[in-house]
Amino acid sequence: MPGTNILYAQSGGVTPVINATAASVIETAREYPDDFGTVFGAADGIIGALEERLIDTSSFSADDLVALGHTPGGVFGSCRYKLKSLDDNRREYERLVAVLDAHDIGTFLYNGGNDSADTAYKISRMAEELGYPLRALGVPKTIDNDLVVTDNCPGFGSVAKYVNVSILEASLDVMSMSSSSTKVFIMEVMGRHAGWIAAAAGLTRRGEGDPPQIILFPEVSFDREAFCKAVDRSVTTNGYCSVVVSEGARDAEGTFLADAGTTDAFGHKQLGGVAPVVAGIVGEDLGHKVHWAVCDYLQRSARHIASATDVAHARAVGRAAVEFARAGQTGVMPVIRRISDEPYEWTIASAPLGDIANHEKTLPADYISDDGFGITEKARRYLEPLVRGEDYPPYDEHGLPKYFRPTLHPVKPRLDPFTPA
Amino acid sequence: MPGTNILYAQSGGVTPVINATAASVIETAREYPDDFGTVFGAADGIIGALEERLIDTSSFSADDLVALGHTPGGVFGSCRYKLKSLDDNRREYERLVAVLDAHDIGTFLYNGGNDSADTAYKISRMAEELGYPLRALGVPKTIDNDLVVTDNCPGFGSVAKYVNVSILEASLDVMSMSSSSTKVFIMEVMGRHAGWIAAAAGLTRRGEGDPPQIILFPEVSFDREAFCKAVDRSVTTNGYCSVVVSEGARDAEGTFLADAGTTDAFGHKQLGGVAPVVAGIVGEDLGHKVHWAVCDYLQRSARHIASATDVAHARAVGRAAVEFARAGQTGVMPVIRRISDEPYEWTIASAPLGDIANHEKTLPADYISDDGFGITEKARRYLEPLVRGEDYPPYDEHGLPKYFRPTLHPVKPRLDPFTPA
Repeated sequence: MPGTNILYAQSGGVTPVINATAASVIETAREYPDDFGTVFGAADGIIGALEERLIDTSSFSADDLVALGHTPGGVFGSCRYKLKSLDDNRREYERLVAVLDAHDIGTFLYNGGNDSADTAYKISRMAEELGYPLRALGVPKTIDNDLVVTDNCPGFGSVAKYVNVSILEASLDVMSMSSSSTKVFIMEVMGRHAGWIAAAAGLTRRGEGDPPQIILFPEVSFDREAFCKAVDRSVTTNGYCSVVVSEGARDAEGTFLADAGTTDAFGHKQLGGVAPVVAGIVGEDLGHKVHWAVCDYLQRSARHIASATDVAHARAVGRAAVEFARAGQTGVMPVIRRISDEPYEWTIASAPLGDIANHEKTLPADYISDDGFGITEKARRYLEPLVRGEDYPPYDEHGLPKYFRPTLHPVKPRLDPFTPA
Repeated sequence: MPGTNILYAQSGGVTPVINATAASVIETAREYPDDFGTVFGAADGIIGALEERLIDTSSFSADDLVALGHTPGGVFGSCRYKLKSLDDNRREYERLVAVLDAHDIGTFLYNGGNDSADTAYKISRMAEELGYPLRALGVPKTIDNDLVVTDNCPGFGSVAKYVNVSILEASLDVMSMSSSSTKVFIMEVMGRHAGWIAAAAGLTRRGEGDPPQIILFPEVSFDREAFCKAVDRSVTTNGYCSVVVSEGARDAEGTFLADAGTTDAFGHKQLGGVAPVVAGIVGEDLGHKVHWAVCDYLQRSARHIASATDVAHARAVGRAAVEFARAGQTGVMPVIRRISDEPYEWTIASAPLGDIANHEKTLPADYISDDGFGITEKARRYLEPLVRGEDYPPYDEHGLPKYFRPTLHPVKPRLDPFTPA
């Protein structure tokens, strides 16, 4: 029989709703006291699991879990650390199983993206090989929306909502000022490898003339002349132009615009930032007054404007992971299956991790409009349901969100120290 | 007797709540049909007033006005245009009075900052000189919070709330990732001349270790060594460091850090952006992985996270302006007077424009902590009430805010065309 305890770990970049998944995992496990004992969180993700730095969540009250559910960031800490293949790093997989064994853990839930699906898959195989009874499941999460099999990834919908609201609001601003001041506004969003987030910003553009008038995707080579022409056309027609640029925008040679060699006053290369580069181009080629914003982590942590649909997805995959484990499933991931676009209906299904690991869902070509600067109706039908609904955190009497910032209780280690490679 | 119509104009940079003032002006005027006729909006601010481009607001329904009240940007358009002195540009002041006369306008309300207070003041004097019966009033607005006499400026509280929520959320993100990834996060906020907005971000820091650990004010010369030492101390103590930097941050010689000569790959100077410069310093001197965001217009248009206190202020000054005009007052501005910090109580008073025009309220020295990187308790007492309360816009079924974007109805001109200088 597998151990009754659960180990839950967060992996990679956090999202506005990954803690909603965490809360849902803990809440669901508590609903089955005959089947599950303690839920442990791994401090700093898989690194903490390897180092046997576990957090006991028993001290979280039911109210704490409600608060956790509306708190951005990753409550136990996350990390960027990819376990190597079984052959290359057997030592780490064996250590992980030893840690699980030492704490009577029969369920391992790894909440992350592609890499985590791969790791969870390998752990399930390793446990089998070692004869250790384990249910190892992946739980989807990534603002990049690039997991296959699942219709969408928890985290993405909230980022999509943030960039939509932000570009709409900023466009109303520049629209007001354009007669005598700023005419072009450029907003940089995440998505180094795929334009999912940039595409989502296109939802704001519902009719001719609506912002953003231009989206720059990583999937479409940046053409300076065509871009400037399009900006100028919008300034002429609408009085202003709003541009959303993906951090992954690149030129015909595949070079990231952000890496084009920007150096600052101190002579060192600047760290990221495609928006100022595009702003420089607008200023130089067109002479329009331009403003730019870089959303960076703000978009990825904006729980205050989370999508209610996204929160529901994040909670549902957490619940399903525990229920699938309870039913004895291993080597799987709960995925979101879309039943219909309108009315929007969805359900949770179980999918083999082997089908998900190491694949990447790119933005389909037919989601990008012919001119390369916008999204198609097909993209809109897919994206729109994901930003629906608001799910506000409560605020304290001083006007700040009541985010949950617990004192974490580490579990006493039972094994010798271990240093990950 | 002054004409019964009202001309309302928006001036300078817009705010998340300037339209709440506009809605309140129109609503209040409608409450007094015996005293007031039509409320006209000046298209693109004072430029439209000079060019006789007026908007008739009669077509706005009561529901429209409610929607206007929760819409960011400036509904009639704003502009950056400062009328010169009476002596230097008598022609424009005379033209303005001619436009008012042609449309039976007896009340002129100028919704803006310092310059607008000055302009409204001069118009009131000019009208008197020409024997034109006019009530000319200023109505306060500016995210910069730099108007004197008034306790605070409508617009500032909402920006303050936005930067607070944003730095709190992004800090929860970097906190989660700091063990193996980003350790320093830098967020750039507005305030080229004064650190009011940067100071407001300090509200998030309620206790030792809370973010933002460092604020860079325009009022404190940037000291690279002291800054890096402070960043490193926070990384050692807290595992990460959150920095809020004002766009107006400058070195000991008074040079803006943002203007330090950043050039991009195309060889031209970059347009603004102090956050990447500071990020470069952190990377170079400390070697920590760093992320940065530039809020730009997002902070100034974020009606979705407006402060309810700020919205109440914005509405109150709009209402008072109409009521003061009705009582025959001219050459004044409704100002916010604070009665007590805790419980927070305030009222609206009438102040002479002459006392307000051309003065600037800078951030008091005793609002900045001794180390130059934070705010004092005194600052906190002043700032905290301004971010209190939430005032969400309604959202449509597709997950976007229902912002009011009316078709504006221009009034047929009655005068010859006029070109502002």
